[in-house]
Amino acid sequence: MPLGTAALILIGSEMVDPSRRDANGPYAKDRLAGLGIPVTFLARVEDREEAIGEVMRTAMDLCDIVITSGGLGPTGDDVTREAAARLLGVGVSEDPRWMAILEERLRSRNRPLTPLGRRQALVVEGGEPLDNGAGLACGCWLRKGSKHLVLLPGVPREFQDILDNMVLPRLGPLFQDQPKVRLVSAVAAGLPEVEAEETLRPWYEKPGVDVSILPSLGVLRIGFRLTRPPVADLDAAEAEVRAALAEGLGGNLVSADGISLEDCLGRLLLERGWTLATAESCTGGLLGHKVTSVAGASRYYLGGVVAYDNGAKRSLLGVPARVLDAHGAVSEETARAMARGARARFGASCALATTGIAGPSGGSLEKPVGTVWIACGTPEGEWARRIFFPLDRASTMELSANTALFMLWRHLKEKDVP
Amino acid sequence: MPLGTAALILIGSEMVDPSRRDANGPYAKDRLAGLGIPVTFLARVEDREEAIGEVMRTAMDLCDIVITSGGLGPTGDDVTREAAARLLGVGVSEDPRWMAILEERLRSRNRPLTPLGRRQALVVEGGEPLDNGAGLACGCWLRKGSKHLVLLPGVPREFQDILDNMVLPRLGPLFQDQPKVRLVSAVAAGLPEVEAEETLRPWYEKPGVDVSILPSLGVLRIGFRLTRPPVADLDAAEAEVRAALAEGLGGNLVSADGISLEDCLGRLLLERGWTLATAESCTGGLLGHKVTSVAGASRYYLGGVVAYDNGAKRSLLGVPARVLDAHGAVSEETARAMARGARARFGASCALATTGIAGPSGGSLEKPVGTVWIACGTPEGEWARRIFFPLDRASTMELSANTALFMLWRHLKEKDVP
Repeated sequence: MPLGTAALILIGSEMVDPSRRDANGPYAKDRLAGLGIPVTFLARVEDREEAIGEVMRTAMDLCDIVITSGGLGPTGDDVTREAAARLLGVGVSEDPRWMAILEERLRSRNRPLTPLGRRQALVVEGGEPLDNGAGLACGCWLRKGSKHLVLLPGVPREFQDILDNMVLPRLGPLFQDQPKVRLVSAVAAGLPEVEAEETLRPWYEKPGVDVSILPSLGVLRIGFRLTRPPVADLDAAEAEVRAALAEGLGGNLVSADGISLEDCLGRLLLERGWTLATAESCTGGLLGHKVTSVAGASRYYLGGVVAYDNGAKRSLLGVPARVLDAHGAVSEETARAMARGARARFGASCALATTGIAGPSGGSLEKPVGTVWIACGTPEGEWARRIFFPLDRASTMELSANTALFMLWRHLKEKDVP
Repeated sequence: MPLGTAALILIGSEMVDPSRRDANGPYAKDRLAGLGIPVTFLARVEDREEAIGEVMRTAMDLCDIVITSGGLGPTGDDVTREAAARLLGVGVSEDPRWMAILEERLRSRNRPLTPLGRRQALVVEGGEPLDNGAGLACGCWLRKGSKHLVLLPGVPREFQDILDNMVLPRLGPLFQDQPKVRLVSAVAAGLPEVEAEETLRPWYEKPGVDVSILPSLGVLRIGFRLTRPPVADLDAAEAEVRAALAEGLGGNLVSADGISLEDCLGRLLLERGWTLATAESCTGGLLGHKVTSVAGASRYYLGGVVAYDNGAKRSLLGVPARVLDAHGAVSEETARAMARGARARFGASCALATTGIAGPSGGSLEKPVGTVWIACGTPEGEWARRIFFPLDRASTMELSANTALFMLWRHLKEKDVP
């Protein structure tokens, strides 16, 4: 059996749906990879004590560290602790220290501690409670021989809080002889996955290098995993990867350190001392939402108008009625007028505007569903482009918002036509 | 152990990546559901014979039908057959009928049959080969006692071909006495998970009833799974569940058919012929994004203003400077003025407004991060409420948007103060 491998078990009847996406698995995998610990077994199992116990047993046979997500909440279908206790032949009991914290947190929120709520302070006997900085249920660290079983809550911010603050700092020393791993995360935009893949192809065959490309509607997340051995010098290999990304992806490489497109755009706006406003029709607020998802966006984002209705395009953005009449709401002229209106109304240096047909209805032969015009106005010029992909409503919105962000980012980066 | 449940195992080192999407799992789950067979265990395991065997053993302990995907190809890391054979204590051997088919198919493509290629005609002894209409590797059906183990290739069109043509037609008769399953999905809002849990507690102990509650920042998704037997009459039980949800959750039950809060809100607006506008500060566009995620939202949503900056609150929403000066941007008075401004500017029947401190910075002792004021204006009155939870930025935004939607929904539903 290889040393230092990990298993992840997602617990909950709702998780046993292969279509269901999960945030904790990818997060844990990346963090464990940072310690050189690969995940070699993944399982999803329903809320049934015997089933959870059997899966834990198998995972502990196969791997050195088993991390579970879910089933630590207050309700009767939360039975992860009980399953672990039965597997280890022990009981569960209240942890007095965590119970005091739980009582205090509820008191500060003026919420009662119900009998069910007390379950969140239960730990498996012989285990160590793991402080939850983001919620009420404590985690639990268990050992059986040389194996580790770590129980974490399923709520992503709680899972991530305990993993980062309580679990990873202790795993590092335990597995310090693990092969060293270096991760490089890049974000690219404005090019199809196949093009990025062609560029990165030479790296696919190199020993000790794993490349992954995760496309997401206008944005690509590119991951390199470098492992020593067989890679001899991680610093040199990382520098080589970064050079290859910069050269191969050129103006499509948004960041080589995993920073999101919206965050990179904000940094460039701050550098210039420029402000931003948005004028959205088909994206319905998504563009503003992306911009404001970055902490500190208030330093450059003044606001936006969601002009879903044509009346709002006229009255709040000053789009001339003759433009709407002559060209329609989904047109280059309207998009440009929306961007100009947003710059004027907010007094912003730059504006991004979207207008299109997200569907599922509202399309025509001339302007089918998926047609979107995007305009970008800056003190250095104004540009517009059309995109058209036959996608579903949510995907069209996402692609439009990402394309708009990329247009302005690219101009700020290259001082060039976006 | 419940009868007639299925497990899916995805085999391949590349599959043990929680970010990786897979087509075979969702396909098989839907097809099995059509026969009334629920999937209760999912696993992904690397290409290692012992690991695959252990996971198969666990899956066969937990479920009646185990379907594997992958590891039947010609290369040395395809070891699914060997793992199954070892688990059952038998060997593997070439199936002469499939070998003839394989030779014929390769001949017609002018391709040679290599020694490795011959591996695709191997079957586990005692198993039945399953014809692959879309590729070269045959599947294999194995039995152990009352349990079934079905090995399928991982290439999606091959997996689906064998599943549809060779597996499902035989599973139907085997599991014709399968308990019939009825699902009820409900959406609730405005109450904590533990309160919903207390209300639904009597259902947790009933045989044949599984209850799940999935909390998501102001919204709960509640699922009932009713199984006959032991439930005698599914129609009667479903009616009982619906009555219990309506009575127990009262004005917090948004829908008993899984329809989202934003969709239900839109339907109520349409019923009244009312229109909606939004005025967002801390939610930054998320509220508009949620409203417009519903297809057809243009029939009632006129648009919104993202007034991130105080200047925009004044100029685009008409919030009086004296209100901002006297009470601050995060206050009941500002929230109400934003809602009034949005109604006036868009000429909308109703408006929702949010203003708060999403963090991570910007909080004060008096108004800590997580403080949000929400206002709701309608032709029948105007209301405001404060929420405060110490959450991260994204969660504060999500909770604020959901709370705003729920305020208006509740008023429209109950004709009552939200």
